[in-house]
Parts: sequence; structure tokens; C-alpha cells
Amino acid sequence: MKRIYLDYAATTPVDPEVLQTMLPYFTEKFGNANSMHGFGQEGGVAVDAARRKIADLLRVKPTEIYFTSGGTEADNWALKGAARAYRNKGARVIVSGVEHAALLGSAKQLEDEGFDVVYLQPDGDGIIRPETLEKALDKPTSIVSVMLVNNEIGTIQPIRELAEIAHKHGALFHTDAVQAVGAIPVDIHELNVDLLSFSGHKFYGPKGIGVLYVKSGVKPDRLIAGGHQERTRRGGTTNVPAVVGLAAALEKALNNLDKNARHIAAMRDRFVEAVERRIPHVIYNGDRIRRTPANANFSFEYVEGESILMRLDLEGIACSSGSACSSGSLDPSHVLLAIGLPEEKAHGSIRFTFGKDTTQEDVDYTVEKLVAIIENLRAMSPLFAEIKGGQKYV
Amino acid sequence: MKRIYLDYAATTPVDPEVLQTMLPYFTEKFGNANSMHGFGQEGGVAVDAARRKIADLLRVKPTEIYFTSGGTEADNWALKGAARAYRNKGARVIVSGVEHAALLGSAKQLEDEGFDVVYLQPDGDGIIRPETLEKALDKPTSIVSVMLVNNEIGTIQPIRELAEIAHKHGALFHTDAVQAVGAIPVDIHELNVDLLSFSGHKFYGPKGIGVLYVKSGVKPDRLIAGGHQERTRRGGTTNVPAVVGLAAALEKALNNLDKNARHIAAMRDRFVEAVERRIPHVIYNGDRIRRTPANANFSFEYVEGESILMRLDLEGIACSSGSACSSGSLDPSHVLLAIGLPEEKAHGSIRFTFGKDTTQEDVDYTVEKLVAIIENLRAMSPLFAEIKGGQKYV
Repeated sequence: MKRIYLDYAATTPVDPEVLQTMLPYFTEKFGNANSMHGFGQEGGVAVDAARRKIADLLRVKPTEIYFTSGGTEADNWALKGAARAYRNKGARVIVSGVEHAALLGSAKQLEDEGFDVVYLQPDGDGIIRPETLEKALDKPTSIVSVMLVNNEIGTIQPIRELAEIAHKHGALFHTDAVQAVGAIPVDIHELNVDLLSFSGHKFYGPKGIGVLYVKSGVKPDRLIAGGHQERTRRGGTTNVPAVVGLAAALEKALNNLDKNARHIAAMRDRFVEAVERRIPHVIYNGDRIRRTPANANFSFEYVEGESILMRLDLEGIACSSGSACSSGSLDPSHVLLAIGLPEEKAHGSIRFTFGKDTTQEDVDYTVEKLVAIIENLRAMSPLFAEIKGGQKYV
Repeated sequence: MKRIYLDYAATTPVDPEVLQTMLPYFTEKFGNANSMHGFGQEGGVAVDAARRKIADLLRVKPTEIYFTSGGTEADNWALKGAARAYRNKGARVIVSGVEHAALLGSAKQLEDEGFDVVYLQPDGDGIIRPETLEKALDKPTSIVSVMLVNNEIGTIQPIRELAEIAHKHGALFHTDAVQAVGAIPVDIHELNVDLLSFSGHKFYGPKGIGVLYVKSGVKPDRLIAGGHQERTRRGGTTNVPAVVGLAAALEKALNNLDKNARHIAAMRDRFVEAVERRIPHVIYNGDRIRRTPANANFSFEYVEGESILMRLDLEGIACSSGSACSSGSLDPSHVLLAIGLPEEKAHGSIRFTFGKDTTQEDVDYTVEKLVAIIENLRAMSPLFAEIKGGQKYV
């Protein structure tokens, strides 16, 4: 059976070249990077080089790069660590209502600790308008967090403007850039954020490794206390192969960013054009322009998203009903509800995310199967029958 | 040059067979284990199988196994998560004074949050006596944490007795078993602990993966909030290759536990016997009997530990002055100070830790080099010259 992966926002395969760079650090150069002896220094030198490479690629200082176990840990550390350390700035935290569960879960924990948490409402395309943030900053606030690229609908937020407003009010600014780094150009200095998270496995690097960029001078409380690793800010034996892999993957992703983004956008656009042309009653969720090239999110009216997913899966096509992290939940996507979609349309939504290896054939095959599946499901839908009979959907 | 690794407590190489089990999950079966589609389920099935295997090996329930990014995260989660969740049992936490930095750092954070933290003083061999804990439990306490095997001096604590006392007083009990699992028999039911941490890279598994065992019914607050992973208790995309590797490494370690432990103890004993016979003025730190087979820790009087380490490293021999996590610190080991060693003797201490691949030749070669290095360093030591001149060392 043909197998087509259109869920690159959930995870990507490790690039075989990237895996090759990692392999020596499992078995031969296996030392603890923190050990002073030769075995340790083989790892230590590799970690230093990786950190320098990442810093150079992002044009920040190596001392601003902190390795974590992934984007979720980085998000938790940024929000809770900064809120706790800078509580004196104001026991208030502002996050957007369309954040990843890592941020929303952390915000909830801060609420339980007595922080006042404000959730910013996006507009209908998922964009947080600067005036919305301005209005929310009417009380002293320690930190604002808005994600750079939304994981469900791909919307790109106006981070530079939002960070500027936060700073004007004395608040720190964090952005979850997990879906952005390696996918769109990210200039940390231009964005002028204080903290930024990203994750290796979103750009053909390994799972279990992420980065929190922390601007010099900013000192979030530690999330994971321990030894002298990461300049005493994050304990735990350094995951040397994963660090080496993340650096190699980032280098490859950024060196090929334009080329890959052009190809991915072309595949996505071909798909969107065909779906909108061939399938009636579909809503393209999110902003058409301010959007990551990889993402297409559709609501197929009068059908259940889970049924579409299962049918596509039977045809060997993998996509998702939203964040992989929320799989298993029967609740509709909080992102789609936040942009104003009614519950029944949110339930009929599917995220297709494209990668550098996605081909035109993959897209065309998926469209054919999708058209047939939607037609078939609608033929069985009493709601859709009413529509066809001329009755208005309520 | 000959290269001899005697720092197995810092980390171990990944077993080549273990690495083989991991490889498919980087590039082929790369799906997000949380995704519902076929690509995701290849990972999901592997994670379920690994969790079941680990649970079976440890004779606990799969739902009691939580994957973390390593021992340090597991320790942080256990202590801070349980203390915060069970603060109503008593805003007091008890830890031993010889814990790993992950525990001591977490305890310090709890102190900053208003918890009363009590540090238990070990006896001269590093053992926490049950009566010491009994005395400390004079006020309501949420959690007690004492490590199973000390990472510096290898001492095995009487965890079963300690846990029983904690429970009698209504406190939860956690043990950091990072140096124990895979090295000595660990029976969680017999120990009767509520929480237990361990780490893959200490028994020839990968770095960046650990486990927190959480007894059914115990609910520590989340350290890393996020999606639905780990039954919503620990967010973050599951590190599938690392999970698979940890399970394979644990299986191999436990299936060969007796054989390996016998070999390792024989190597360690050969080393200890030779060092004590051939080098005067040495102190063997820790308990001779209640001790992990892998560990030998010596104080070489009148010389600096760092100088010994550097000379051994130049000869290709890797060992450590204590925890790798504390490398770079010029402070003497808190463990050695806690067992009553004066600062100057603590400074002259070296940890040698042996592994399943350590040979008799490795041991004999190390002894030869060590004898020569100590003689040479002492010949340059004004303190040692005084001794030799008949003056008493003060």
C-alpha cells in the first residue's frame, strides 16, 4: 500500500545524515560531557561545538543557548521559571488562547500558585492583535507568551510588535517557536524576545532534545535543578548524541530553508487549491498569508474529523485532527474554538502538514482519496442530506 | 595509548545490541507515538511494549512507569511534585545530606517556596540510621527522600526500614535509585517506596531517558505540563528510540545482573586490595559491605585529587573526583564532608567505578600507574615531607 505522511507538524523522521553525526556518541565517544577526563571531553567538545554552531546559526551567543529535553520542557521552563523569578514585576502572566498545551498547562499551574493569568483572544484568522495585548497589560505583568507559528492552523503572529508592547510595560516576552525554527526565517534579534523555545524533532533532528534561548541577563528560576550542566541552570547528564543531532539538523534546515520552504509551500498550495475547487462546504482555517508554508487546516462541514482521519489512515495517509499532544481527547480543538468556529465545525477539522520530501504525487493521491472519503461520509450524513434537500444547516 | 574507563558511575556506553533496537525508530518508524495514524502507532506500540517490559522486569504495573528525560528530571519531579501536591500532609521535606545534586537542588527550591527542609546526617560509612530519620519526623512531613546507592561512595541505604518509618509518620517515601537499578537487585515492593527514579545511561542504555516509578494512587504535581503523554502527567513528545533503548538495556542488565555484579565486584575487590596493600596513607571511604559492587572511593592523603585525576588522564585512565555533575566545582565533595572527612582529605579523594567490560589487565595497569603517580605527587608534597621527617600531620 502507498504510505503518505502529511503530519510533519507532529514530528519528522531523523535525516539519515543527521543520524550519522549522532552515532559515534552512543557507543564510542560515550563519555559524560561533564567529566573532566578524555572520555568526557570527547562529549564535552562535541556539545560545545554544537552549542556554538546553533548560536552562530541563530546569531545569538552560545551562553544564551540552553539544552532541554524538548519544546515542552523549554516552554514550561520559560513560562514558570520567568513568572516565578520575576513575580516582583507583577503576579500576572499573559498568554494567548491559541498556545500549545505545554504553555496552557504551565499557565494553569501558575494560576494554582496564585498568579493572575490572562488569555488573549485571537481574531478570526488566529492572529493576536497588538491592541488586544496592549489592553491586557493594564496591570503589572511578569511575562507575556505568544507562539510564533500556531501548531494547528499555522498562523504566524506579529511577535515583534507584541514583544515591543510587552517590554514597554516592563514585562518579559517568550515565544514558543517550535513550529517556526527550521520552517520560516526566525531572527531572534529582530523579534526582540527574551525567551524562545524550539525542538529538534520538528526539523528532521532527533526527539528528546530542545533549546531554550534565554537572552543574556534574563534569569528564569530553574525547572530542573541539579548539577553544573548548562551553567548550573538545567541539571541532568547532557544528551550528547541528541545535542549533536539537533545542531546538525538545524544547520541543514537553515541552509536549505528557502529551497525547502518554496517546495513545501508549492505542495501545500497545490493541495489547498484542489481541495477548495473539488470539495464543497469546506472552510480553510487560519490566515492565508501570515501562515507557515507547511500547514493547511480544513473544516469539512457535516462530517466528523475522526471519521475522515480513520478513512485516510486506511488508505495509508497520515494527517491529524490537531495537535498530536491532544490525541485521545474528544474535546474539539481549543484553537479552532478560539478563532470562532462552532463546535460541530471544529469537530470536522483536519490538519495536513507538508514536508521537504512531500511529492506532487503524494498531494494528488491524497486529494483523490480525500474527495472520495468526504463524498462517501456525507452520503451517510443525515445533516448533509437535509442541506441537499434545501434545508438550512443550523 | 591504552585507554581505560573507570568512571561507569558517570555514564556507560550504549550496548551495541541496544543501539540496534533503537535505530529503526529514528528514521523509519519515526511517527509521534501520540498520533492516531499508522505512522504514529508504530511508535506508540513500541512505547507500550517497552513500558510493559520495564514494568514486568520490575514487577510493577505499566501504569506506574513514567518516562522522563533522565534521573535528574525524575528526582526533581518526585521531590517537588510530591511536596507540592501533599503540602497539606506537612510543609516539611526530609532528605539525606548525601543526596545527588538533583535532590539537594530540588530541596533548596522547596526551601525557597517556604518548605522546612531537614537534612539527615549519615554515619561515618555514609549510612542513614533509621533512628536519625525517626528523630527528624517529629513534625508533619510530606515526603522523605533517601537514595538507594550513593553515587560517590557506593553505600547502600537501608531503604526498606527508612520507608517504613516514613510511612508510620504519614510521609511519602522517594528513593533515587539511579546507581542501583541494573547494578544491584532492586525489589520495589520489598523496599515499599512510593516513588523511585532511575536513568537509562547508567546501565548501557541511552542518555536522555529515565523513569519515575509512581505507586498507584500517588499523584505528584506535574513538573512538565503539556499534552496527553504519560497519562497527562508528563508532557512532551515521547522519545521513542530512547524509550525502546532503555527497555532493551534494562532487560539485558537484569538478565545478567548476577553474572555482571560478580565480575564487577571481583575487579573492584582486586583493585581495592592492591591499592590498600601498595599505597600507604589511604582511606577507603564508605561502607565495605553495604556497598554497590561497582564502586571504590579512596582518599589519598597529602595529595590533591585533581592532580591525581589529571595524571591518570594523561595515562589514558578515566575516573573522577566525585559526581560528574559537580565537575568544575572546586568545593570538596559534600558526601565526603558529611561522613566526617576533613576538607583536605576530601580534596584528595578519587572515585573508581567498574563496569562489565573492565578486565583484570585494566585493573592491574591502573594500579601500577596509580602507585607511581601517588609516589611522585607525594615526593613533591611539603606536607608529606614533614610526615616522612617524623613530624605529625595536623
